[in-house]
Amino acid sequence: MNKNRRELFESELARMSKKVADYIYENARRHGEELRKTFKPIDIAESVYYYTRLGGKRLRPAVLLASCGAVGGDENAALPAAAAVEIYHTWTLIHDDIIDKDTKRRHGDTVHIKWSQKARTQYRWLPEQASHYGLTVAILAGDVQQGWAVASLLPDLYWRKSVDAEVALKLVHELDFETLRILVEGETLDVIYSTRRIDDLDQEKILEMLWKKTGVLYRFCGMAGAMIGLNTSDKENSEVVALSEFASRCGIAFQLQDDVLGIYGDEEKLGKPVGSDIREGKRTIPLWKTYMAADPGQRQLIGRVVGNPTASPREIQSVTELFKDLGGLKYTQELARAYIEGGNVGGTTTEGALSYLKNLDDSRYKSFLRLWADYMISREF
Amino acid sequence: MNKNRRELFESELARMSKKVADYIYENARRHGEELRKTFKPIDIAESVYYYTRLGGKRLRPAVLLASCGAVGGDENAALPAAAAVEIYHTWTLIHDDIIDKDTKRRHGDTVHIKWSQKARTQYRWLPEQASHYGLTVAILAGDVQQGWAVASLLPDLYWRKSVDAEVALKLVHELDFETLRILVEGETLDVIYSTRRIDDLDQEKILEMLWKKTGVLYRFCGMAGAMIGLNTSDKENSEVVALSEFASRCGIAFQLQDDVLGIYGDEEKLGKPVGSDIREGKRTIPLWKTYMAADPGQRQLIGRVVGNPTASPREIQSVTELFKDLGGLKYTQELARAYIEGGNVGGTTTEGALSYLKNLDDSRYKSFLRLWADYMISREF
Repeated sequence: MNKNRRELFESELARMSKKVADYIYENARRHGEELRKTFKPIDIAESVYYYTRLGGKRLRPAVLLASCGAVGGDENAALPAAAAVEIYHTWTLIHDDIIDKDTKRRHGDTVHIKWSQKARTQYRWLPEQASHYGLTVAILAGDVQQGWAVASLLPDLYWRKSVDAEVALKLVHELDFETLRILVEGETLDVIYSTRRIDDLDQEKILEMLWKKTGVLYRFCGMAGAMIGLNTSDKENSEVVALSEFASRCGIAFQLQDDVLGIYGDEEKLGKPVGSDIREGKRTIPLWKTYMAADPGQRQLIGRVVGNPTASPREIQSVTELFKDLGGLKYTQELARAYIEGGNVGGTTTEGALSYLKNLDDSRYKSFLRLWADYMISREF
Repeated sequence: MNKNRRELFESELARMSKKVADYIYENARRHGEELRKTFKPIDIAESVYYYTRLGGKRLRPAVLLASCGAVGGDENAALPAAAAVEIYHTWTLIHDDIIDKDTKRRHGDTVHIKWSQKARTQYRWLPEQASHYGLTVAILAGDVQQGWAVASLLPDLYWRKSVDAEVALKLVHELDFETLRILVEGETLDVIYSTRRIDDLDQEKILEMLWKKTGVLYRFCGMAGAMIGLNTSDKENSEVVALSEFASRCGIAFQLQDDVLGIYGDEEKLGKPVGSDIREGKRTIPLWKTYMAADPGQRQLIGRVVGNPTASPREIQSVTELFKDLGGLKYTQELARAYIEGGNVGGTTTEGALSYLKNLDDSRYKSFLRLWADYMISREF
């Protein structure tokens, strides 16, 4: 991505991101005289907004708004759904952070850590009691966000006359049932695979898991944007299918890039520690490809470090060097590019995301979607 | 409740309960060729049905179906919502069991315990890893159930032509936003109150917490049944209000009786240990009333035992005797009865749930609702 294109993309993304954040606060404000009265008590009120306040790139709402625009819809009509998908994504982060025992996100502590610390320092509870309270707040905050997204933000689509009630109800179903059950399957597989021998897995299994834990929510964004733009509940409509497929493939590319950044990224830019995927033993494509190319001695090193929560920075470093030397990194980047541009990697021919845009009329939104797809694999955080 | 009325009630409840369970399985089967393919992988598929398979009284779906019938609706039209509320209730149980560290429910292990044991014995994982896996499955199973209830079962109301899409969407909003945010507040207060001095609380605060954690979901059942029976999205409709208020008050009575059974119940009938509320330090009405009537020596005993996870059966026994001797038990039962029949307890005059039925036409369903209300305070498990 050259400088001009990057700047154009970033200004469009920032514009949409602000709209989405404003909508999130405005929706909540409607239900309480002031923001902190919509959700109670105070620890729930603060934890449900916490990740939103810390920022985030808001790539999911952006592709939803642009998909609405790309089929000729009004981007503002899709705002309730864009806000919904951002909050929905956030609850999955909060619960995943518990599951993955992650302590940092978006340059701050994760929810379960932050409220555990609050209980220790402000409430002066004992460490074990405080830690359990952090867990409690994180579970309940995620539960509230799931409902808020699906049962307040999404129905706004109808109450604000963007779509028919039937279309809003269909989107509720697609997000919180069809997408959800795949997403939870992906998250569970991610946990289970971490305990499996690396050579028991293969590229197909790992890519399927990536698609389930990440791609499927991106797919919803493309689908929902198009359905809102066309005010249809028909997900077989050709434009709806095209944008679903586009966003779905971009989602896999996003996750592949995420796995690369989880090893090689800049902690300062990412806002979370690099190397934790290795400590947690995540079965990523870079790991799998590297392991398959490694000799017995190298495999022994990988076996000792990957999945070892107490691995030293030096050990992590020696494994990340292997990832580079044995081609696991380069291979993953090529694979990510193939999901955007199409191509043959590792013997599998992939239809690229961009090809799904070809039948859409040219527009400012279509141009943005191209930039957005490019950003999936060029982003550094 | 005499024997005839009890038998009539139980046969009606059993009939409705079977219909609801059948509907739950049928809905899931529609989405996968067989039940265990709707939700994956296997640990999610089994955990989401687990509490349903263990039974449960299904009081919430029953009051929803009867409220639909009581306004002249077809009880079968309300089945999707009755199934939804049962699954919705189940996810709150699974997450609450984590939060309350409960190990037994419905004569079986709680979800987080059961899947932790599976990971140890079948997967042969280390204890800490297995315990974290139990937590993971319980969090995700609850998340899936929340979506399943709201985004598959409830929308069935429209797809099966029971109500207009607008009414279904309104019910989604009422359950997973309006009810949810109060329910989570109640659960959080329950946790926070357990750490507070008993004499910092008062009857009003405790009753408000009980209503939030329990009554509000009962209120939804009365409201939803009536809205479906009338095919209206207007929750201010007089019959909708009457049944909301009826079920809401019954819900408080249910929770008061639950707190009594948590101290005096028969473990065999209840399917969970008695005394755990005392060990967890739950701030219930029996505890509060007893504490307020206790002398300094008795207060010291209460202070030593209540909230002490390692309290001995003998210590628990000495506190439960205090509850009886100092009138906390009797007072709670009188209060529960006042929520059903009306009356003045502890200086507060309460409108009884039954009075809200007076403007409804007589019917088989209205008779059932009277029995159901009576059961709230006469049940032994």
